[in-house]
Amino acid sequence: MGSTERIKNVAKRVAKWHDAGHKIVVVPSAMSGETNRLIGLAREIMPEPDQRELDMIAATGEQVSVGLLSMALKAIGKEAVSYAGWQVPIKTDSAFTKARIQSIDDARIKSDLDAGKIVIITGFQGVDEQNNITTLGRGGSDTSAVAVAAAINADECLIYTDVDGVYTTDPRIVSEARRLKRITFEEMLEMASLGSKVLQIRSVEFAGNYKVPTRVLSSLTDPMMSLEEEAQSGTLISFEEENNMEQAVISGIASSRDEAKITVRGVPDRPGIAFQIVGAIADGNIEVDMIIQNQSLDGKTDFSLTVPRNDYARAMDILNTKVKAQIGAIEIIGDNHVSKVSVIGVGMRSHVGIAAQMFKTLFDEGINIQMISTSEIKISVLIDEKYMELAVRALHKAFELEKI
Amino acid sequence: MGSTERIKNVAKRVAKWHDAGHKIVVVPSAMSGETNRLIGLAREIMPEPDQRELDMIAATGEQVSVGLLSMALKAIGKEAVSYAGWQVPIKTDSAFTKARIQSIDDARIKSDLDAGKIVIITGFQGVDEQNNITTLGRGGSDTSAVAVAAAINADECLIYTDVDGVYTTDPRIVSEARRLKRITFEEMLEMASLGSKVLQIRSVEFAGNYKVPTRVLSSLTDPMMSLEEEAQSGTLISFEEENNMEQAVISGIASSRDEAKITVRGVPDRPGIAFQIVGAIADGNIEVDMIIQNQSLDGKTDFSLTVPRNDYARAMDILNTKVKAQIGAIEIIGDNHVSKVSVIGVGMRSHVGIAAQMFKTLFDEGINIQMISTSEIKISVLIDEKYMELAVRALHKAFELEKI
Repeated sequence: MGSTERIKNVAKRVAKWHDAGHKIVVVPSAMSGETNRLIGLAREIMPEPDQRELDMIAATGEQVSVGLLSMALKAIGKEAVSYAGWQVPIKTDSAFTKARIQSIDDARIKSDLDAGKIVIITGFQGVDEQNNITTLGRGGSDTSAVAVAAAINADECLIYTDVDGVYTTDPRIVSEARRLKRITFEEMLEMASLGSKVLQIRSVEFAGNYKVPTRVLSSLTDPMMSLEEEAQSGTLISFEEENNMEQAVISGIASSRDEAKITVRGVPDRPGIAFQIVGAIADGNIEVDMIIQNQSLDGKTDFSLTVPRNDYARAMDILNTKVKAQIGAIEIIGDNHVSKVSVIGVGMRSHVGIAAQMFKTLFDEGINIQMISTSEIKISVLIDEKYMELAVRALHKAFELEKI
Repeated sequence: MGSTERIKNVAKRVAKWHDAGHKIVVVPSAMSGETNRLIGLAREIMPEPDQRELDMIAATGEQVSVGLLSMALKAIGKEAVSYAGWQVPIKTDSAFTKARIQSIDDARIKSDLDAGKIVIITGFQGVDEQNNITTLGRGGSDTSAVAVAAAINADECLIYTDVDGVYTTDPRIVSEARRLKRITFEEMLEMASLGSKVLQIRSVEFAGNYKVPTRVLSSLTDPMMSLEEEAQSGTLISFEEENNMEQAVISGIASSRDEAKITVRGVPDRPGIAFQIVGAIADGNIEVDMIIQNQSLDGKTDFSLTVPRNDYARAMDILNTKVKAQIGAIEIIGDNHVSKVSVIGVGMRSHVGIAAQMFKTLFDEGINIQMISTSEIKISVLIDEKYMELAVRALHKAFELEKI
């Protein structure tokens, strides 16, 4: 939520749904810039803030939002009531700054809804067993919204964001990108993990685990647009299998520049090597994404992996100082000018030849594939980052996504 | 608390007390300007904010402070833990924006103190029976501090303010004003209700009811000043009767410009008139301070009262429209250019002639007394506001307060 003007617009939109007879729970985020301001204050005091106290501070941003939104609704004649996470309560584990929701008590929410009230709950936060305030980490308000929707068996969870839905690919790269009216949960999960910033991956997981129909739609539209139009806008993350039949084989192309590749060359090909390499990096709290071990040649092999670009220098350092000599590798080489491009679609399961078409399209454009990883519903390739946009455009065209 | 720099200074001061072996609970206020910022946001949404939601919002200011102060203590190697009012819990009634504390659970506080931790608790707020957040009103952090001190049987409650103690009178009016080392609870109560802004009156009441020795001292001194010096600084609000013996007859002169006088002239002198006049004003939620009814002359009397200056116009309106004709008064006249000057001291009880000396002093300066009200330990007079400073200076000299 932005300024108080924006909060008033949210209230109008909520009131419109309520007027149409819906029971509504709203989970607003903090006002624009507020969470950063609070974290900034904390860092002025303690450059590496104590995590429990950081949550105590950061949680106030959403608390202000719920109070303001409740007032904005009252100001236009609606009955509304706000709750902080601990008042519901939304119970989480004690992993401060990245807590996970364990349970949500729906008693107070349902009784207020039954009394005709609009219920407003702080996103991003909960309370642990010892009554400490916890937060769920960045984007946690989406997760809160989906979790509350699951707890109260909502018909649909509407997530208002600064985009109007999920696209076949990034519209800044391909102007012909089309908004998807529906996407399956599994595809959305791949989209989220492969670089689409539309929804936080944990909120998608929650929607999946609890089968919460979730719609991503724009908060920037006119709050007074017709309810029918709004109910059809955005992208619905769907759990109904029959819809898959109508869908195209491929739903979207994701791309991510947040990649770096590291190759450990000339590793003796014996058991335990993979563990020693990947284990050392995981111990440094660095996520490893793609992993490839090449065919062994005369007892030596090359081992490649990718890490987030921000962790590249640290991962190189760990491998050079803690792993290289220990496993008898010849050299560690790295490249942080790589990107990942992925083709995603549940239809892929039943269609052979998607991979072949993807590789041919890239070959036709003269783009070299450095690494490949696949799942049942996606194929990802690592390429030189300078070809990323070209690859996305070529694949979007090859799979005719502009016709979706 | 002001900037994060100021919070770091508070942490140093607290650590100094802790280093000396004291168990410490700290009740910080919101950062400077923060409460006003939050209330401003609320008013942008709803000019007359819903009180429950306003408390939800306003309470966040202190929550940020406790988190930051806890971090500042951890940053200098102290064990610290912060709690919001509901986590203690500090239970209040449900009078949002002006709630009263009902009980404080000391279990978690004491267990943390016993474990060597410094405990930091949000001031200004609590939680009601239904787990709604409540606030105590302006200056409520002082009240919270005294209440917590009472709950844990603290040896002393130190209230750090922007002044270094309670003075014989306002030093901006009388440069010879002296800081009182001690003041009795009753005198402090009169001081607070008569215009001294040092402590909120409710915190003084709390200190009185629970006999919490409370020291008012300056937050602007060097945080590293010696503990001995700091422990003797400021003004101690004392409950030990023996100290009264040593004290001067008069402890201080209070003055207030926040006064307006209204006279209802030519009222028939019959039972029920006082009730009709004062009742109408009270119904308008206006506080009445001094009340005087003059000697009756041929069945008619004049009735005078004072109200806060901000309520003057409204009180005049109420009397003119709802009371004047009803009671058959001749006219309503008012004056909002009056001030109240009070002489305060427990010694007054056993010394005759204080009133006489006060009136003579004012007469000698040619100051006309418009109204008088007295209690066991104070005499207040209402005078033309242009003479307020002159009266305070003359009385300060007459009672030799510069020699305290």
